[in-house]
Formats: sequence, C-alpha cells, structure tokens
Amino acid sequence: MTEHGKTPVTVLGLGAMGTALVEALLAAGHPVTAWNRTPGRAEGVAAKGASVASTVSEALAANKIVIACLLDYDSVHEVLDPVAAGLEGRQLINLTNGTPGQAREMSAWAGQLGAEYLDGGIMAIPPMIGTPAAFIFYSGSGSVLAHARSALDTFGGVKYLGVDPGLAPLHDIALLSGMYGNFMGVIQAFALVGSAGVKAREFAPLLRDWLAAMGGFLDRAAEQIDDGDYVTGVVSNIAMQAGAYPNLLKAAEEQGISAELLTPLQPLMDKRVAAGHGAEDLIGVIELLKK
Amino acid sequence: MTEHGKTPVTVLGLGAMGTALVEALLAAGHPVTAWNRTPGRAEGVAAKGASVASTVSEALAANKIVIACLLDYDSVHEVLDPVAAGLEGRQLINLTNGTPGQAREMSAWAGQLGAEYLDGGIMAIPPMIGTPAAFIFYSGSGSVLAHARSALDTFGGVKYLGVDPGLAPLHDIALLSGMYGNFMGVIQAFALVGSAGVKAREFAPLLRDWLAAMGGFLDRAAEQIDDGDYVTGVVSNIAMQAGAYPNLLKAAEEQGISAELLTPLQPLMDKRVAAGHGAEDLIGVIELLKK
Repeated sequence: MTEHGKTPVTVLGLGAMGTALVEALLAAGHPVTAWNRTPGRAEGVAAKGASVASTVSEALAANKIVIACLLDYDSVHEVLDPVAAGLEGRQLINLTNGTPGQAREMSAWAGQLGAEYLDGGIMAIPPMIGTPAAFIFYSGSGSVLAHARSALDTFGGVKYLGVDPGLAPLHDIALLSGMYGNFMGVIQAFALVGSAGVKAREFAPLLRDWLAAMGGFLDRAAEQIDDGDYVTGVVSNIAMQAGAYPNLLKAAEEQGISAELLTPLQPLMDKRVAAGHGAEDLIGVIELLKK
Repeated sequence: MTEHGKTPVTVLGLGAMGTALVEALLAAGHPVTAWNRTPGRAEGVAAKGASVASTVSEALAANKIVIACLLDYDSVHEVLDPVAAGLEGRQLINLTNGTPGQAREMSAWAGQLGAEYLDGGIMAIPPMIGTPAAFIFYSGSGSVLAHARSALDTFGGVKYLGVDPGLAPLHDIALLSGMYGNFMGVIQAFALVGSAGVKAREFAPLLRDWLAAMGGFLDRAAEQIDDGDYVTGVVSNIAMQAGAYPNLLKAAEEQGISAELLTPLQPLMDKRVAAGHGAEDLIGVIELLKK
C-alpha cells in the first residue's frame, strides 16, 4: 500500500529493529525494498507490502536511499563489501549500533565508493519506532538527511548533530552511559535495602524522589564543566565526599552485598583530593577521565 | 529566645550540620544546650540563645534528650566513653554519619548504660535543615522518637523505619549509592561528548530528558526484584545488552576517555548470561551482588 510521490527506500536487515523500521515506512506509504540474509524473515514485511530483494545487489539497485540496520559494523562490511560497486550514487544511512570510530571509517569507505553517508543512533527499542517516544541521532551528510527526511520522520524524532559521522554514535553511547550509571546506582540501592528484608516496592518511591531531588546535579555539572570552575558555590566538597564514601562500601560489606559497582569512584575522588582539589565539587573527577 | 513548654535538647557537635540543627531548634523556641570540642565554635549559637556547656558531662546532665552530630562513630565514642555513666536515663539520638553495623553496636552500648537509642540519617546538606526539602531517616527506639518529636520536626521531614537501629544508616547509604551511580553515569556521559568538543550545556537537556524517559526502570526493577521474576515482559534482554556494552567501553577508548566508572557492569552481565539468564532483564545482576 504505497502512495504516489513518497520516497522509496531500501532496508538491509530485518532483525527486530529493521523490521520495525520497514513497518513504519510502509505504514506511512513509502515504497520499501527489503533484504535479509535469512530470506524467511522477510515474509512478514512482504505481506504488509514490501518488495523483497533476493540479493544485496538487487536491493542496492532498487533505490537511491539505502538504510542498513544490521548486527554490527562488521556485518555491514560483510554484506556490502562483495557488492561495493553497487554503492555508487547511493545515499547510505547506517542505523547499525557502533562506535564513533566505526562510523567515521565507514563514512570514508562509502565516500571512496561514490556514496554519500549518514550515520544514525536509534534511541529506542523496536516497539517504540514510529511513536513520539522514539528519536534518532543523525550525523554525516546533511544532503542525505534532507533527501531522506520524509522517510526518516516516520521512525520518530530527528536530531541532526553535524557533519562528523561519529557524533551520532557518540551521543547515543553518552546517553547509554548515563543510563547504565543510573542503573548501577539503582541496583546497588535495591541490593542494600533488600539485605535487611526491605521490599523493593516500599523503597522505590523514596529512591525515585531522592534521585529527582538530585536532578539539579546535571545542570550544575554542565555549567561547571563548560566554565572550568569546580569551586564557586560548592557546599559539599569532594574532600568531604571522599571521606564519607568508605561508609558506602563498608555498609555494603557489613550487609553481605558486593560494592563492586560503586568502587571505581573512590580512587578518582582520592586522587583529586590528593592533587589539591579537595575544596572543589565532585564533578572535577571528570578531568581524571581524560587520558 | 525559648518558649515555655518546648522540649529542651542537648546537642553535641557544632560542625556545619550540628550548628544548623541547633539553629533550627532555637528558631522554633526549643531551649538548647550545646557542646563542642573546640569551644570557639559555640559563640555563634550562644549569640542566638543557646546555653554552652563547658564539659560533655555538663551537657549530658542538662537535658534528657541528647543529639550527637559528630565526625563519625569513633568520635561519638571518644566523646562519650569517658563520661558514659552520665548517659543513664538519657535518650541518645545519634545523627552522625555511619554504617548500619556501627548504629547497631552503639545502640547496644547505649542500652547497657541505661540510655535509650535512636539513630538518624540526615538526607540534606546543612543549608537545607529546617526547610521542607530536608528529611531524616530514623530507626531504633520509638519512644525516643515520640518524646523528641517536636524537636526533630524542626529539622525537616521525619521518616521512621523501625526498631532495628541499622535501618536509618542503611536507607541513607542506599539513597546515596543510587545518587553516586547516577553521578558516575552523568560524569561519563559529559566526558564522552566533551571529547568531541560538544558543550556540556548543549548536551545537558538531552541527557536530562533521556534519564527521565528511563525513570520507569526503577519501578519495573522493584516489581521484578520483589516477585523474583526477571523474565516477564522483557524487550531488551541482558544478552543483547551484554553484547552491546563493549561499544560503550570501546567508544570511550577511541575518544581518549577512561571507561573505568562503567567497567564493573560488564563482567556481571557476562556472568549472568553465562549462567543461562540471557533472556532475562538486566536487573537480574542484583543476584550476583549477594555474597
């Protein structure tokens, strides 16, 4: 069920995420040519109106816009390297999970083959694709983004970060890093109270409210980092926090809970204090992460 | 400026926090007897109406309710051990930072001396004391809490957790653990985008919105933990996450940023997957923290 005038798109890869992308495109009326290494996977989207290409070459030849959503960047190379000549004149949009370095390498490689390149980092799980809760970071060719925009809009919000193709995966991974740190703290907190028989459901509202109350840390940290000023207005300085932190580790030990998730912060705080930054804010440990 | 009928209170320790407690009590009209190892520190609260005790014995003799707010539990023992007999018949409320084990030990020790014991964990920094933003966890003697309630209400919200004196420091430390995990993630995220020259102020709104969108993790985790069910309704399972996590560490490496704050989660995820829990939720790693 495709509509006249809608940009046609090729999608390589029909895992859970690739399938969700194809379904969002089809639902909006875009003609889609889909390819998957295991052809059986294509039956579902074929039933919904996608053309199924039997070879990668055929899929590349079908449309100027080619979206790749595969397991990893090595898989993208495995799929495209044998038919690389077919990339000439294509606009390759790579939504595969990877690192900034991998995105930059692939952009250069595609450029040598005469393809324009746009990288993307999907900030959603497959069921969210096509809903307002989903958004995708893009970086690389602005002209690819402009040409494919109506198709990309069907997936969710579009956040374009600039021409460096590494920026999309970098932002993707930075958000995930923030999330995993959050998860680590939450898991440790539940493990601690659970060791005394406290129900997680009872403790959850306390933890939620506490983390919300600490939310100002993020914006204050941003100002401190940009201004390079970790001193002004500090109330609880890093020397005080480094002095109290052993209690966190000791309390876990007493309760029979491993503190391994939170251990790495202690040496960084201690190093900062030893280097004469004791009166500064905790956020100053960011300087020690720069190698 | 004390009012007739307001419970009189002794406060041991006039650091930033002890001073804030005394000021909140005085502002509400409670008679306060204050003691500090360095007498000079008492001048400020004396000017506001506190009586200053020149010895710990004198401070203990002055009032039935004795609040300790010192550097750590060792300091509490150093101060009280030499005059331990003076604790008989007192209600000792210890708001010093410590661990659950230290609170339990001190409660037992005070009990042997004929004192009732209430432990507290202050969830605020000194400027917040006396404001609605502050709250204090209490655990131990419920009768001490009842008798001292009007005085304790002047500090901020009162959250009583039960008779086990270790519960207040445990909840205190659990919330701090959640907070520090959050900080670790936020710091790592800023370090990553900063390595590509992205301003922290530009990235902060993205990170704030993302963490807010992930907030459901906490309540879902609580249900999973209480129900011992890490499988039902999982979309992004731990095997998928363990497989993608190396990208977080590799991206940091590429960008010249240490990933040491987030490293400890990888082996826990890998162990969980290797033990056959790959289809479960990430939260299941909590089982591996139990020693």
